[in-house]
Amino acid sequence: MSDSVYKIIELVGTSPTSWEDAVQNVVSKASKTLRDLRVAEVQKLDAKIEGAKIVAYRARVTLSFKYQPKE
Amino acid sequence: MSDSVYKIIELVGTSPTSWEDAVQNVVSKASKTLRDLRVAEVQKLDAKIEGAKIVAYRARVTLSFKYQPKE
Amino acid sequence: MSDSVYKIIELVGTSPTSWEDAVQNVVSKASKTLRDLRVAEVQKLDAKIEGAKIVAYRARVTLSFKYQPKE
Amino acid sequence: MSDSVYKIIELVGTSPTSWEDAVQNVVSKASKTLRDLRVAEVQKLDAKIEGAKIVAYRARVTLSFKYQPKE
Amino acid sequence: MSDSVYKIIELVGTSPTSWEDAVQNVVSKASKTLRDLRVAEVQKLDAKIEGAKIVAYRARVTLSFKYQPKE
Amino acid sequence: MSDSVYKIIELVGTSPTSWEDAVQNVVSKASKTLRDLRVAEVQKLDAKIEGAKIVAYRARVTLSFKYQPKE
Amino acid sequence: MSDSVYKIIELVGTSPTSWEDAVQNVVSKASKTLRDLRVAEVQKLDAKIEGAKIVAYRARVTLSFKYQPKE
Amino acid sequence: MSDSVYKIIELVGTSPTSWEDAVQNVVSKASKTLRDLRVAEVQKLDAKIEGAKIVAYRARVTLSFKYQPKE
Amino acid sequence: MSDSVYKIIELVGTSPTSWEDAVQNVVSKASKTLRDLRVAEVQKLDAKIEGAKIVAYRARVTLSFKYQPKE
Amino acid sequence: MSDSVYKIIELVGTSPTSWEDAVQNVVSKASKTLRDLRVAEVQKLDAKIEGAKIVAYRARVTLSFKYQPKE
Amino acid sequence: MSDSVYKIIELVGTSPTSWEDAVQNVVSKASKTLRDLRVAEVQKLDAKIEGAKIVAYRARVTLSFKYQPKE
Amino acid sequence: MSDSVYKIIELVGTSPTSWEDAVQNVVSKASKTLRDLRVAEVQKLDAKIEGAKIVAYRARVTLSFKYQPKE
Repeated sequence: MSDSVYKIIELVGTSPTSWEDAVQNVVSKASKTLRDLRVAEVQKLDAKIEGAKIVAYRARVTLSFKYQPKE
Repeated sequence: MSDSVYKIIELVGTSPTSWEDAVQNVVSKASKTLRDLRVAEVQKLDAKIEGAKIVAYRARVTLSFKYQPKE
Repeated sequence: MSDSVYKIIELVGTSPTSWEDAVQNVVSKASKTLRDLRVAEVQKLDAKIEGAKIVAYRARVTLSFKYQPKE
Repeated sequence: MSDSVYKIIELVGTSPTSWEDAVQNVVSKASKTLRDLRVAEVQKLDAKIEGAKIVAYRARVTLSFKYQPKE
Repeated sequence: MSDSVYKIIELVGTSPTSWEDAVQNVVSKASKTLRDLRVAEVQKLDAKIEGAKIVAYRARVTLSFKYQPKE
Repeated sequence: MSDSVYKIIELVGTSPTSWEDAVQNVVSKASKTLRDLRVAEVQKLDAKIEGAKIVAYRARVTLSFKYQPKE
Repeated sequence: MSDSVYKIIELVGTSPTSWEDAVQNVVSKASKTLRDLRVAEVQKLDAKIEGAKIVAYRARVTLSFKYQPKE
Repeated sequence: MSDSVYKIIELVGTSPTSWEDAVQNVVSKASKTLRDLRVAEVQKLDAKIEGAKIVAYRARVTLSFKYQPKE
Repeated sequence: MSDSVYKIIELVGTSPTSWEDAVQNVVSKASKTLRDLRVAEVQKLDAKIEGAKIVAYRARVTLSFKYQPKE
Repeated sequence: MSDSVYKIIELVGTSPTSWEDAVQNVVSKASKTLRDLRVAEVQKLDAKIEGAKIVAYRARVTLSFKYQPKE
Repeated sequence: MSDSVYKIIELVGTSPTSWEDAVQNVVSKASKTLRDLRVAEVQKLDAKIEGAKIVAYRARVTLSFKYQPKE
Repeated sequence: MSDSVYKIIELVGTSPTSWEDAVQNVVSKASKTLRDLRVAEVQKLDAKIEGAKIVAYRARVTLSFKYQPKE
C-alpha cells in the first residue's frame, strides 16, 4: 500500500428485484474501467414506485480505486 | 409541479422474508389512500428476533404525496 | 406482527416540572386516539425561559402505532 | 403553554423563483387548516432541473401546531 | 423490565447471498451465548468485491441483551 | 494517564421513575465489576409505555474504564 | 424582531439532583448578564461518577440572546 | 430506468446576488457536458465576505447523471 | 497564517425579505467589532410566521476571526 | 464541581508542522486568559495548501472553562 | 470470509507525543488478546491539558476481530 | 471568484509515518493535474494494521478545484 492514493466515487445502481442486485449492477459497470475494486459501501437505499408497485430498488454506494490523475 | 405542496410521512413495513418485501408492503398499504407515490426512502432497517431466528424484517421509510390539507 | 404497517409521528410535550412529565403528557394525550403505543423515543429536549426561570420543559418524541390508512 | 402537546409535520414547498417563496407557499397552504403556526424550519433545499434550467426551487420544512387528536 | 440493565454490542455478519442472510448469521452465532435477543438494528451495509463480483454481503448490526457483569 | 488504554461500552438502564435514576441503575450495576468509572454519557433516552402510562424510563449510556485485555 | 442579530453560546450546567436542575442553574447564572433569554436547547447530557454514585448531572445547552457587539 | 447506473458529483457554484443564482450557475456549467440532469441537492451554503460586504453566495450541490464509464 | 489562533462564533441574522439579506445583516453588525471576517457558513435556516405570512427569514451562521484573548 | 457553570468555545489553531502542534498553539494562547482548561476536543482537521505543499495544519477544537459572566 | 461474524469494540489510546502513537498503543495492547486486527478507525480525537500544556493525546478508535462467543 | 464553479473530490492518502504525511501525499499527487488547490478537509482517519503494528496511516480528504467540464 505504501504511499498510494485512492479516489472515492459515489454511484447509484438500480434493479427491479433487490438492493443486492442493484449493488452488483454498479460493481459490474464500474469494473469495466476501474481496476481493483474491493468494497462497495452503501450510503442510501430507496425504491422507485409506479402505481402501487416498486419498479426499481436503488442503492447509492461509494467505491474506492487507485487514483491515476494523468490517465 | 408549479407551486404544489407535498407532505412527507414516515411508515414502518414488516415482512418475514426480506427488506424489499417490507417496503413493498408499506407501498401497497399506503397506496390505498395516497395518490401518486413515487419514491420510498429507507431511513432505518432492523430485524425482529425470536429464539435464534429472524421473524420479521422491518424497514422504516419516508413517502411524499400531494398535500391536501382539507380532505 | 406479520405484514403490519406502522406510522411514526413526532409530538412535543410540555411540563412545568420535568422532561419525564412532559413525555407522560404526550403519551396521555396521544393515547386518547392512538391504540397500542409502546415506546416514545426522545428526539430533542429544551426548556422555555421567562425572566430567569424555566417555565416549561419540552420534549420532542416519536411514537409509532398501527397504520390504518382508511380511518 | 402549560401542558400543551404539539405535533410536528414535514412539508415540501415549491416555487419557480426562490426558496423563500417556496416556504411561503407551504405556509400559505398549511395555514388554511392549521392554526397558530409560528416557525418553519428548513430541513433540506433542492432544485428541479429541466434542460439546463432550474424550473422549481423546493424547500422541505417542519412546522409545529397544537395537537388535537380528536378533530 | 423494572430496573434491568442491558448491554449493546456491535457485530458484523457476512453472507454470499444477501444482507438478510448476513444478519441471520449474526443472530445465529450470537444466540449461542446471549439469551433473549429481540432486535438487530442495522448500522451499516457494504459488499466485498473480488474481480467484478460481489463475494460477500456484510451487515453491521447492534444487539442488546441482559447485562450480567459477573458471568 | 501515560499510555493507558480504555474501553468504551454501551449499556441501557431502566427505572420506573426518572432518567436520572435509570443512569444511576446502570452505574450501580456496572460498578460491581468495572473499576474507576468516571463519566456516563447519555446517547439516547426513551420511555416504555403500557396502556396510557410510562412504565419505564430508559437511558442508553456509554461508560469508559481501564482496558485489561487479559482478565 | 426586524433585523436584529442574536448570538448563540454553549454552556454546561451541573446539579447533584437532576438534569432539569442543571439547566435551571445555567439559566440562573447566565441571566445575571444576558437579557431576554427565551429557550435553552439541550445538546448533551452526562453524569459524573465517584465510587458507584452519580455526584453530578451535567447538561450542555445552547442559549441565544441579543448580540450587542460593542458592549 | 431498468438497470442503469448513475454517478453523483459535488460542485460549488457562486453568485454575487443569491444562492438560487449560484445553483443556476452550477447547473448551466454542468449541463454543457452532462446530459439529463434532474435535481441539484443543496449540501451546504456559505457566503464570502470582503470588508463588511458579502461578495459571493456559494452553494455546494450534488448532481446525478447517467454513468458512462468509458467516455 | 503561521501560528495564528481563530475563534468561531455563531450568530443569527433576520430579515423580512430573504436569507441572503439575513446573512448580510449578521455580517454588517459583526464587522463593527470583528476584523477580517472572510466566510459566513450557514448552519440553519428558518422562517418566523405570523398569521399566514412569513415575517422574518432567519439564518444561523458561524463566523471566524482572529482570536485576541486579552482585548 | 457542585453547581458550577462552564462555557464552551470553539477555536482554530494552526501549525506548519502537525495537528498536535496546532492544538498546542490553541491551548497556549487560550491559557493566557482562561483558567483551568482540561480537555481540547477536536471538531475538524484540515490543511492549507500553497503550490503542491501543505503550509499549515489547522485544528478546530472546543474548550470548556468556568463561566464568569460578570468579568 | 464466507459466513464469519466479527465483533466491533471501541477503545481509547493515549500518548504524550501524538495521536499516531496513541493509536499504536491501542493496537499493541489489543493485539495481546485479539487476533487478526486489520484496521483501526478513528472516531474521536482529543487532548488532555494540564497548566497550559497538552499532557496526553487521546484517540478513540474502533477495532473489529473475529467473534468467538464461547471463549 | 465571480461566477466560477468548483468541483469537490474525495481522495485517500496513505503514509507509513503520520496522517500529516498521508495528506501531503494526496496533495502532491493531486497537484500534478489539478490547479490551484487551497484546502484539504479531513473526512476520516484510520490505520492499517499488520501483526501488532500500524503499517499505514490513511486520511480521507476532500479537495476542491476549478471545474472545467470540457477538459
